[in-house]
Amino acid sequence: MREIKSIAALAGAFSTLPGVGKKTALRYAYAVIDMSEQEVDAFCAAMKDVKSQVRLCSVCGNFAEDEVCELCKTRQPKQICVVSYPKDVIAVEKTGAYDGAYHVLHGTLSPMNNRTPDDLNIKSLIGRLGGVEEVIIATNPDVEGEATAVYLARLIKPMGVKVTRIAQGISMGSELEYADSVTLSQALGRRTVL
Amino acid sequence: MREIKSIAALAGAFSTLPGVGKKTALRYAYAVIDMSEQEVDAFCAAMKDVKSQVRLCSVCGNFAEDEVCELCKTRQPKQICVVSYPKDVIAVEKTGAYDGAYHVLHGTLSPMNNRTPDDLNIKSLIGRLGGVEEVIIATNPDVEGEATAVYLARLIKPMGVKVTRIAQGISMGSELEYADSVTLSQALGRRTVL
Repeated sequence: MREIKSIAALAGAFSTLPGVGKKTALRYAYAVIDMSEQEVDAFCAAMKDVKSQVRLCSVCGNFAEDEVCELCKTRQPKQICVVSYPKDVIAVEKTGAYDGAYHVLHGTLSPMNNRTPDDLNIKSLIGRLGGVEEVIIATNPDVEGEATAVYLARLIKPMGVKVTRIAQGISMGSELEYADSVTLSQALGRRTVL
Repeated sequence: MREIKSIAALAGAFSTLPGVGKKTALRYAYAVIDMSEQEVDAFCAAMKDVKSQVRLCSVCGNFAEDEVCELCKTRQPKQICVVSYPKDVIAVEKTGAYDGAYHVLHGTLSPMNNRTPDDLNIKSLIGRLGGVEEVIIATNPDVEGEATAVYLARLIKPMGVKVTRIAQGISMGSELEYADSVTLSQALGRRTVL
């Protein structure tokens, strides 16, 4: 069966989104056919608005509508939580357990992928450390996230700023039986006194 | 944390796609921010192209670029396979086991949702039955699909056309142990002689 070109093209566009395979992309394309023209216009306008209105905060690198983002405008930068991506800011904010400032690296160090410190938003982090009491490194607990954490700690500690790392261990609600052994051995090694 | 309006608006648009929840929609919106302006323009153009170029085949109701779709142009309508949605045509075509024509109803009968025969593409099906030897009803094996099949059979059989229904039973590669009992009892009831 010959595919309809315009549907195949739209499915191709959808398949560039993260985690969208061929079948899902086609399903989305079909959903667009069922939309009204007004809905399609609004969808396109929303895409273009995001491109034209969202920029990176000049202080922390998070997404912002203005020169400086809402969080940088309102939070005391005595603590700075360093994350890899803007979505990680949302994850930390959702906990409600942190009310300090953020810094978004836009990636992690990865020699494999040729991502060096110059490719990350690190210089502006160093430039804003005056008066900062603690830098909390909240990169992912994987090889790249760990490497990035170690690199940042070596860079920042000599400047007299306390550097901490989010705790690693058994997830809340999980069962020991099913925990992978790396996580479990780390949970043992980093046990805390009750 | 106050959301950035344009990101929230785009995530809202994505969440209208089938099976897309809040979190996935936000992930897609973030992916759009990372696209180049050219990519966003191409994406929008693809959406608008689909709306302007895809229409319904005047014969079978499937998606088409012209007045009549590719399948209606090339297939002998001695057999007509009746499906609920255009995506079902793709599923049947993928089997490679069918080379007849199709007819797309664009829905199923559903008294619960006030979908009556008049809401479906049934009239044009009746109008094309001259010379047809068999109508294969390939609606889903659920309550609405079955009701639609029974309705169509009652309508078409008196016209002297053979009406068949795709077989129901145990799926290839599945295990009896895990089959739901409705499916298993149907598989028993419709057993075939070896």
